[in-house]
Amino acid sequence: MSAESVRIGIGPLEEYCKSVFSHLGFSEDYVDAVSSGIMEAHLRGAHGQGVGRLPIYVKRIELGLINKDPQISVVSESGATAVLDGDHGLGHYAGTKGMRLAIKKAREFGVGAVGVRNSAHFGVAANYGKLAAEDGLIGIAITNSTALIAAPGGAERLMGNNPICIAVPTRDKRNVVLDMACSNVAFSKIQRAAQTGQSIPPGWGTDKDGIETTDPQAVLGGGMLTAAGGYKGYGLAVMFDILAGVLTGSAYVTNVTHLYQDLENKQRTGHFFIALNLESFMGKDMFYDRLEDFTSLIRNSKKAAGTEKIMLPGEPEELNAKDMEANGVPLPGKVVEQLNDIAARFDIAAFG
Amino acid sequence: MSAESVRIGIGPLEEYCKSVFSHLGFSEDYVDAVSSGIMEAHLRGAHGQGVGRLPIYVKRIELGLINKDPQISVVSESGATAVLDGDHGLGHYAGTKGMRLAIKKAREFGVGAVGVRNSAHFGVAANYGKLAAEDGLIGIAITNSTALIAAPGGAERLMGNNPICIAVPTRDKRNVVLDMACSNVAFSKIQRAAQTGQSIPPGWGTDKDGIETTDPQAVLGGGMLTAAGGYKGYGLAVMFDILAGVLTGSAYVTNVTHLYQDLENKQRTGHFFIALNLESFMGKDMFYDRLEDFTSLIRNSKKAAGTEKIMLPGEPEELNAKDMEANGVPLPGKVVEQLNDIAARFDIAAFG
Repeated sequence: MSAESVRIGIGPLEEYCKSVFSHLGFSEDYVDAVSSGIMEAHLRGAHGQGVGRLPIYVKRIELGLINKDPQISVVSESGATAVLDGDHGLGHYAGTKGMRLAIKKAREFGVGAVGVRNSAHFGVAANYGKLAAEDGLIGIAITNSTALIAAPGGAERLMGNNPICIAVPTRDKRNVVLDMACSNVAFSKIQRAAQTGQSIPPGWGTDKDGIETTDPQAVLGGGMLTAAGGYKGYGLAVMFDILAGVLTGSAYVTNVTHLYQDLENKQRTGHFFIALNLESFMGKDMFYDRLEDFTSLIRNSKKAAGTEKIMLPGEPEELNAKDMEANGVPLPGKVVEQLNDIAARFDIAAFG
Repeated sequence: MSAESVRIGIGPLEEYCKSVFSHLGFSEDYVDAVSSGIMEAHLRGAHGQGVGRLPIYVKRIELGLINKDPQISVVSESGATAVLDGDHGLGHYAGTKGMRLAIKKAREFGVGAVGVRNSAHFGVAANYGKLAAEDGLIGIAITNSTALIAAPGGAERLMGNNPICIAVPTRDKRNVVLDMACSNVAFSKIQRAAQTGQSIPPGWGTDKDGIETTDPQAVLGGGMLTAAGGYKGYGLAVMFDILAGVLTGSAYVTNVTHLYQDLENKQRTGHFFIALNLESFMGKDMFYDRLEDFTSLIRNSKKAAGTEKIMLPGEPEELNAKDMEANGVPLPGKVVEQLNDIAARFDIAAFG
């Protein structure tokens, strides 16, 4: 099966994740937060943040670089804000706790802002924005990450391709969810082009000297991702790093440890969460009425020739989720082999 | 002088603005907020948001569409949040009050979030982020605005080219300030290309049917600005409109009245402000130490061939401000003529 892609159901895949993390000694809460965060990535079509990350997670956990039993603590707290120390656990866990605390603060004060330091890779930002939206609040989730983007005129992987999620609850629970990073395209798109031997369009990346290239290998071999909108994407990456890295007491810029390339240091990723309580601004029903009008103005706006549907942020991912739930998650044969290797080692059920 | 550009000092230009708004019957606070906001646009090099807007401001004020004496009121308040009604005054005034209230909330609760409804054009977002940074807080300022961007696949001016400013205080008071809108380029760049008869590069805009064009006239004639990073810029514009328009009780999407094209209705622009108190997250000195390290990692990072300097967000604008302060603001002769027409009508000193 190694060359081809197979489909594995969300249910069995989540069960597999739970078995792996349970085997490693994670608490039940920790298992659930990480496993559901990984599933969320697949549901959104962000497969690069899904189970393909398990081999490196397991490796870092076994090396003691990701904590199996993190004791998340409150470093500082002040009315509507707090800073948590993630104690070097996987970011899905500290991230969930961070957003949940921001939600609690927002219920009390109208808005809550919570930073997390000393965390690790947290998967997709939407996983945390969604926690707020599902509770009927607006959620903003930011993280810093491994350096991949150059500054304008730069020739170094300097800023992380730091993502933001802004998630807004709707009455019908579909929610409006934007989840985006700061580069024009994801690193995984460059990897895919390299695997299939295709060139990449101008605007995707540069070589190691900062010169635009259409050769994916030049980007992978020490080159950089190009920021979306030039100084705009770069500027957002800088600001997200100040909020998630500098302000929380975590690592920042090139000091966030590379998930794959540095197997001696903990990552020290930082996150930042804001929750806004609708009721503090206007009645929830009025907000939902207004948002329905807002979304219908957008959905019913004029289409260009050839466009079937005008979509809101999160709608392409919603379509993807339906596909995943009905047909399972497409996994390259190589990933399934890696998962089965872990299964054999941990004596848990493999995929057939 | 009409075809050429002249330079007018910041001081005389600000005095001129103050005379105009005083003549119109604005209170001293209102005069100051609007005049300094307009100067801030020139200092940042965002000349399109500067004194060139005075003729339309004056016209809307004289038509009663922008309030000369707005009574800004608190619509709702809840711990760390509030919503203000701008009473249809110029946005510089309600925006200043909105950010000042967010700062006050942040000093008490660690974070403050304030929405403003029923406002009007507020100039550059940096004007408000800067208020927070100058007070030693992190400030985030967002506004919605006249529809100019299409949805992906759309053929209609749907979303405003809504800007965000994130401003971070530094110990040396230079501050790190990102101010960006959601399109690849500003509308004024398209106007300039049209004036000089040049074509525009692909990626700047579309014609009225949503088809990419290199003809600036096609963009100006009912076409759309292209969002930065495709769904990313569009998605940010949507989210900023939900925060500034839907959540505040203001207008949104295509219902924000066009500053120039609709002289029957008030604009009903909405703004949204967040302030974060550094001291609630970590000691201010520790933050400034960390930020100095952060900025020096960026400034000292590797440069591509031909690059003189790696800059932080806000540094190009800082250079521009020095030029403006030393050499005055460059104004097209046509703008100076319009200012002199107002001066003659209001019996105030004209520019020589």
